[in-house]
Amino acid sequence: MARDIDDLPKNGANYTALTPLWFLERAATVHPDRKSIVHGRVSYTWRQTYERCRRLASALNRRSVGLGSTVAIIAPNVPALYESHFGVPMAGAVVNTVNIRLNAQAIAFLLGHSSAAVVMVDQEFFPLAEEALKIWAEKAKGNFKPPLVIVIDDENCDPKALRYALGKGAVEYKKFLETGDPTYAWRPPEDEWQSIALGYTSGTTASPKGVVLSHRGAYVMSLSSALVWEMTEGAIYLWTLPMFHCNGWCYTWTLAALCGTSICMRQVTAKGVYSAIANHGVTHFCAAPVVLNSIVNATPEETILPLPRTVHVMTAGAAPPPSVLASMSEKGFRVAHTYGLSETYGPSTICAWKPEWDSLPLEQQARLKARQGVRYIGLEFLDVVSTQTMEPVPADGKTIGEIVMRGNLIMKGYLKNPKANEETFAGGWFHSGDLAVKHPDGYIEIKDRSKDIIISGAENISSVEIENTLYMHPAILEVSVVARPDERWGESPCAFVTLKPGVDKSDEGRLAEDIMRFCREKMPAYWVPKSVVFGPLPKTATGKIQKHLLRAKAKEMGPVKLSKL
Amino acid sequence: MARDIDDLPKNGANYTALTPLWFLERAATVHPDRKSIVHGRVSYTWRQTYERCRRLASALNRRSVGLGSTVAIIAPNVPALYESHFGVPMAGAVVNTVNIRLNAQAIAFLLGHSSAAVVMVDQEFFPLAEEALKIWAEKAKGNFKPPLVIVIDDENCDPKALRYALGKGAVEYKKFLETGDPTYAWRPPEDEWQSIALGYTSGTTASPKGVVLSHRGAYVMSLSSALVWEMTEGAIYLWTLPMFHCNGWCYTWTLAALCGTSICMRQVTAKGVYSAIANHGVTHFCAAPVVLNSIVNATPEETILPLPRTVHVMTAGAAPPPSVLASMSEKGFRVAHTYGLSETYGPSTICAWKPEWDSLPLEQQARLKARQGVRYIGLEFLDVVSTQTMEPVPADGKTIGEIVMRGNLIMKGYLKNPKANEETFAGGWFHSGDLAVKHPDGYIEIKDRSKDIIISGAENISSVEIENTLYMHPAILEVSVVARPDERWGESPCAFVTLKPGVDKSDEGRLAEDIMRFCREKMPAYWVPKSVVFGPLPKTATGKIQKHLLRAKAKEMGPVKLSKL
Repeated sequence: MARDIDDLPKNGANYTALTPLWFLERAATVHPDRKSIVHGRVSYTWRQTYERCRRLASALNRRSVGLGSTVAIIAPNVPALYESHFGVPMAGAVVNTVNIRLNAQAIAFLLGHSSAAVVMVDQEFFPLAEEALKIWAEKAKGNFKPPLVIVIDDENCDPKALRYALGKGAVEYKKFLETGDPTYAWRPPEDEWQSIALGYTSGTTASPKGVVLSHRGAYVMSLSSALVWEMTEGAIYLWTLPMFHCNGWCYTWTLAALCGTSICMRQVTAKGVYSAIANHGVTHFCAAPVVLNSIVNATPEETILPLPRTVHVMTAGAAPPPSVLASMSEKGFRVAHTYGLSETYGPSTICAWKPEWDSLPLEQQARLKARQGVRYIGLEFLDVVSTQTMEPVPADGKTIGEIVMRGNLIMKGYLKNPKANEETFAGGWFHSGDLAVKHPDGYIEIKDRSKDIIISGAENISSVEIENTLYMHPAILEVSVVARPDERWGESPCAFVTLKPGVDKSDEGRLAEDIMRFCREKMPAYWVPKSVVFGPLPKTATGKIQKHLLRAKAKEMGPVKLSKL
Repeated sequence: MARDIDDLPKNGANYTALTPLWFLERAATVHPDRKSIVHGRVSYTWRQTYERCRRLASALNRRSVGLGSTVAIIAPNVPALYESHFGVPMAGAVVNTVNIRLNAQAIAFLLGHSSAAVVMVDQEFFPLAEEALKIWAEKAKGNFKPPLVIVIDDENCDPKALRYALGKGAVEYKKFLETGDPTYAWRPPEDEWQSIALGYTSGTTASPKGVVLSHRGAYVMSLSSALVWEMTEGAIYLWTLPMFHCNGWCYTWTLAALCGTSICMRQVTAKGVYSAIANHGVTHFCAAPVVLNSIVNATPEETILPLPRTVHVMTAGAAPPPSVLASMSEKGFRVAHTYGLSETYGPSTICAWKPEWDSLPLEQQARLKARQGVRYIGLEFLDVVSTQTMEPVPADGKTIGEIVMRGNLIMKGYLKNPKANEETFAGGWFHSGDLAVKHPDGYIEIKDRSKDIIISGAENISSVEIENTLYMHPAILEVSVVARPDERWGESPCAFVTLKPGVDKSDEGRLAEDIMRFCREKMPAYWVPKSVVFGPLPKTATGKIQKHLLRAKAKEMGPVKLSKL
């Protein structure tokens, strides 16, 4: 059937690829003199940022870096990392942001896996990159094509590191930009499905996978991210979340759409957060629960209160414990709790707040907020389904299933990993690997990563629920619960605990007893940790506790003996 | 060259058509009990709205209305008109919102041109639809396939009109919804380029053209529209702008994305606007300059001031005169000035405000704000180009060129009108037909529609600039300036003026003299209107002054005689 109403083809005037790159050109047109980036003593305007990004794109193109190339960047939150999110894709290439806390071995793997044509590296991390390149060259043998190495100068840092890198033949970023044309006529991608970014899973697991994102997805995410978070034109955003972590949940691009200002931070401290709020008028920042923890537990000298205005904080990762959420709220931070993965461009759900909850007791508010919530505006489908039948679980707040998703905020796939792609996209769904329940109001709540669940006897125990209770204990700063082999039950909960500063640590046995007693009052007996271990917790670059290392440690400890009963 | 990094195909999990329809499902999930629509004594929640829209889609499908069908709706701003924006495309069909101020002849043309399968009509407008159907049937003769006629009941109105319609065999909307399934499993379009809406140019010109919009464009516009206007989650929007006008600039869909609340208005009055702000906490509304005019000139009895909070107002159409903008600002309205066309999903530009302008004198602020500004976030390209060479004009605030655009916020095209499509998309650009200058800061300012320019001697005169000056005259409520034939100059400006209430109208000759003297002090002599005519101005349904009628009137008046000199 001929359908007149649809018989109007796309043409050059009414269709073009969706890409966040246009946002930068617009910001430079609308607010050329507004600050785009502040980094210590250095700051840029949107006009300058646009020029610098065009220079970067042009300089890359002149070195034959373009469509199909990957540009790796190893840097903390500095302006060059922001610029790479525009300059690299404007050249047609893909930006691969590398986690700076990885070791040389791991970085060598990623550079080789993605065939990096260029490695941009912050001066402080040059020795790390140098070592990684050496490992890569050794492993690749004859196949090694040395990438162009660019060292990012940072006048906020010790110049020695820069001199060292230059002595090793690296090109200085500043000089590299000078080889580019500030009026370079960049072109948007012809196809919006073209890749814009690559990021390796930071890995609570051992084998990193390369998550590939498209221009289209980055576009949809950057608009969605603003809308779910009351982030409006001219927002002032503090970079506590690493940009290398999933492109800063796409806020790199959102800020250009909003003509907002990025406040960079090389290192995140509670004091630094409070100072940035006071000095730069920060309106929004994202933070892992560990950062919230440090803000809540900051000393009076580090703290600047009251806040000059409500500051919006977005958190994700493990659910922040209710006690932390309540304390943040008392201080004047409005915490939005979200959940997502590198594979989903950042958050996929937000615990959308309802005004009618405002009148509930703070503790109850925190419990509601600790849930992961509802899907993002730009994500078309999300549900919790039975891992056996793939049917949605009942919305009873009890039945555990896997979170699955579908839509425009799901990655293109893992780079050169057909097996992983097959698994993750099985049955036309993206499988998150996270286990959750659905509450009667439709909000989801994560119970565990499927591999983090503890199976004691025939019962599933959520390590997250035990952790949430332990966080209410007055002596505990941080806690992680994993399965430990158990002679009688197969597995039983083992708690790894970091105590608050000032807590008397002389009698660990008594402290452990006290913690177990605390638990017995609040949870079923078989949930109570049978082992409590004190000390610092191993973490990823993004502040996620590395449960696989703790699990290994618990295993090394050997099984809980029958006599323990 | 094989490019691994792009070798990741779309699949069912990571790609789906962009469509605003998902926003409704999400709103019903996240805020099922929040008010979606308030209409006098009637109100609905998002759960109810979603159910009603699914019923509508299902009922239409059961009547074989689906892909390729057009559903016309003739109604003021009532809930059914809102619902048609979701229910009709959920059925796969295209919603054609009809301007209620058209006459039966014009409506008959549109219904026939779009082969309407269904006509939904508000009870008050049933006789108009009835007449239009009769004309259509007569013209089409044997080819007439009578559409399904649904009359929209409105308990806020006189029941007689409803009874009349039911007596004529129309199906009642309420009853029609009952034939649909409230849990209907609607499907998004397979292709986001599929048409979602059709709207005929309301016409300052004679021949209406059918503007066809896509799901993709509606999606991008609904997110952009929120972001450019500081419109956040839960916004409360007053429907002063007709939804039938370009789908209410896509705010129909934006409100679902934001889980906001629509306050309906059958008729727009200054008193009604103030009451809605006071009673419903309205945060945003859109209004043609004529509505701003009535708000500014409202009597003290109609006015409720101070406003409970800043109210955001978006205006477009002719540039509102600086005096009106200044007065709105004094009252506590924050006016965003935008510019766009039906062909561009609503506004394409906004006069983005800069904080540094806050300290300027109010009059100067108003002058800056009267400019049309910079392109929307979702529009990729907009410029002012020479009509001869298609090269961008210099950004000197003086050189006049045509506004041209390109990108995802441009219509699919005009329905069954290849000639018009060829013209409007000539050279790979969308041609707006509007003439503007580009200021040194990149902001554009419209000087005239190309056909509204007055050519006196060899000089172009902008009718808009004369109007802006005339609006500063204390006795003038509304004014429109058009070309009148002139024996000496070919054309000369002729001003049609509506005086403010209370102005002594007894001596029109003296008033006209006074107005011309006022002009002589403020503009070049050849700009000064040679003729001034008093009376009401003819307007379109959306409050646009119909210059073509005034031009016809000026022509009838005959040429200005040489003796007038």
